[in-house]
Amino acid sequence: MSSSLNLQRKLHGKLFIRSKIKLNTRKNLSLAYTPGVAEVVNYIYKNKKSVYDLTIKCNSIAVVTDGSAVLGLGNVGPEAALPVMEGKCAIFKEFAGIDAYPICLNTQKTDEIVSTIKNISPGFAAINLEDISAPRCFEIENSLQNLGIPVMHDDQHATAVVVLAGLINATRVVNKKLKDCKVVIVGAGAAGTAITKLLNYYGIKKLLILDSQGIISSKRNDLTAYKKELLSILPNISETDLDCHSGLPRRSAPRNDLKIATEKADILIGVSVKNIFTREIINSMNKNPIVFALANPDPEIIPSQAQKFGVKIIATGRSDYPNQINNALVFPGFFKGLIEKRIKQVTMEMKLRAAINLAGLVKKPKTNYIIPSIFDKRVVPTIAHSLE
Amino acid sequence: MSSSLNLQRKLHGKLFIRSKIKLNTRKNLSLAYTPGVAEVVNYIYKNKKSVYDLTIKCNSIAVVTDGSAVLGLGNVGPEAALPVMEGKCAIFKEFAGIDAYPICLNTQKTDEIVSTIKNISPGFAAINLEDISAPRCFEIENSLQNLGIPVMHDDQHATAVVVLAGLINATRVVNKKLKDCKVVIVGAGAAGTAITKLLNYYGIKKLLILDSQGIISSKRNDLTAYKKELLSILPNISETDLDCHSGLPRRSAPRNDLKIATEKADILIGVSVKNIFTREIINSMNKNPIVFALANPDPEIIPSQAQKFGVKIIATGRSDYPNQINNALVFPGFFKGLIEKRIKQVTMEMKLRAAINLAGLVKKPKTNYIIPSIFDKRVVPTIAHSLE
Repeated sequence: MSSSLNLQRKLHGKLFIRSKIKLNTRKNLSLAYTPGVAEVVNYIYKNKKSVYDLTIKCNSIAVVTDGSAVLGLGNVGPEAALPVMEGKCAIFKEFAGIDAYPICLNTQKTDEIVSTIKNISPGFAAINLEDISAPRCFEIENSLQNLGIPVMHDDQHATAVVVLAGLINATRVVNKKLKDCKVVIVGAGAAGTAITKLLNYYGIKKLLILDSQGIISSKRNDLTAYKKELLSILPNISETDLDCHSGLPRRSAPRNDLKIATEKADILIGVSVKNIFTREIINSMNKNPIVFALANPDPEIIPSQAQKFGVKIIATGRSDYPNQINNALVFPGFFKGLIEKRIKQVTMEMKLRAAINLAGLVKKPKTNYIIPSIFDKRVVPTIAHSLE
Repeated sequence: MSSSLNLQRKLHGKLFIRSKIKLNTRKNLSLAYTPGVAEVVNYIYKNKKSVYDLTIKCNSIAVVTDGSAVLGLGNVGPEAALPVMEGKCAIFKEFAGIDAYPICLNTQKTDEIVSTIKNISPGFAAINLEDISAPRCFEIENSLQNLGIPVMHDDQHATAVVVLAGLINATRVVNKKLKDCKVVIVGAGAAGTAITKLLNYYGIKKLLILDSQGIISSKRNDLTAYKKELLSILPNISETDLDCHSGLPRRSAPRNDLKIATEKADILIGVSVKNIFTREIINSMNKNPIVFALANPDPEIIPSQAQKFGVKIIATGRSDYPNQINNALVFPGFFKGLIEKRIKQVTMEMKLRAAINLAGLVKKPKTNYIIPSIFDKRVVPTIAHSLE
């Protein structure tokens, strides 16, 4: 049995709830509960906004999942998702002092998830969508942008922020201008889509993104609405390229597409599956290639292999290699900023500033140090202060 | 400003969440979160029941309200209900060690409440419905009895248990046999309905219940389905009685009905509104009248007045008088029993045993001591052990 399994069995889960008031006297009981609490109820009833001053709402986040895309393990359902959500909540507390509670949903229907989140929202300052598969994660997040409290799917946005921060520093190391780099993103799910959009917003023009069927281009006739939306920010694929991948799902050859896409690329980002970044792929890239192999727990290429193939800077999602691209660097501080400033919607500008400021914490980036450690105490306040 | 308001403003709510694991090292982080947690996820995915052993589910309760019937304050909505739910959760923790989290709903539609509770249920061991108005509280509770975890509206059931416990001891003091007593219940909402059903289950036959329109009888043509259901356990009202209250809502005279109902009653229970138990009402009762005036915060009659009118035993819902009939005596231990024994549905038999055992904690009941104190350490284990 693994030590994590042992630990969880011993602890019966990772979170517990405490009262701030000791209820050991009649007086305290009558202050915390009836009859004293009646005045607090009446006060909020008359001044609805005072709920932020008088209750746990001000510092409470719901971490909501349907268990459909948990880590790299897929659709494991709400019960099996719970230990991950507990871990997420523990991180919120430890790193940002936020009280986060896991809500694991017994439905994977978009409209039911949307209405459930609307219904439970009054007691929370923000909603963190977590481990929900694409494209439902986009639909759910979009549908909830006018809820009155921020709703953010951090598998998308926190990941995009930390990737951009890492790329800013990685290109400083190899003396390239990030905006001029050719970037290839492999994987067009939640993370890949958000990374593509943020890199484009940053100003990168030479962007290509691939899904399991090949390069996303206007010649494809199998694209979902969310993938079609990406087309406006992607360059036109040349006819030669299109001949190679045919543009049809059944006849396409993704491996071939990947080779075509990475030709003369400066940066290769994987948010897909293990071991797909071969020597051939790496060798087709420009000089001083930068590779972020973020599939978890097994990356698209392991760092020692990547270095052997000539990769200059390699980052992964794992804590046991240098350059960990971990969204836990971003979400605690980002949500702290959102709830402290009572921001109602996340914008691209907030994410951009967070990425630039996060990158700025590394004064002298090196090949094996492009991103701060999650234990760097400056990270959370820096991210939180990026939001306005 | 009240001290409760000050306190809540200072504390920003009464609950906080803590991690059981300190996340200050990479090792602990990788045990609590990714990659270590992946094994826990896979284990639960393959053995769904292990979620009780490996997560917070085993000890977690959702305290769910729609804010429609908060204390005696009415339909104040979900935000204003939050401080009460926080207090409830604090009591769960302090008295029974249960981690309870408040969920305040942004809807008062029965079907939406039912589906929301279904959707959020995977992470909880039980659902405590709270401060939801009748008759929706009955419909919601009934609809969720096959959820797989217990769903209990304690405004109904915990109140009924503590009332029965109090009556068992009160009748011991005045040397009456409870089963033979004539009992009048004023108020046919959540609490009144549940009290009526439990007293009937205990064996009391001479039961009358009144709502705002008068005595509930088969001659009434304005009864909801839930009130009609009560008719099967209520005695037939005599023709004389019916003449007096006419049986029609508009023409009925509740005050008159109350006087008719209490004639030769041994026990009068109010779960209604303040100051309605007049001298005339009390004087119409049998010798050694027992009165539970449970309207909160202002009872149907204040204890000093009741004693002046000849009431032998008076109980209220308040902590500043003797004989506090407080459902907080029951719900912590009751839910502890439910979740420890993984009971899926609450039965009348469980409530009956809990009431008898709770009453049994008072060895020598007196007029001003018919129920144990909420600070009596024996209460929670006694209630919990009543459940099987």
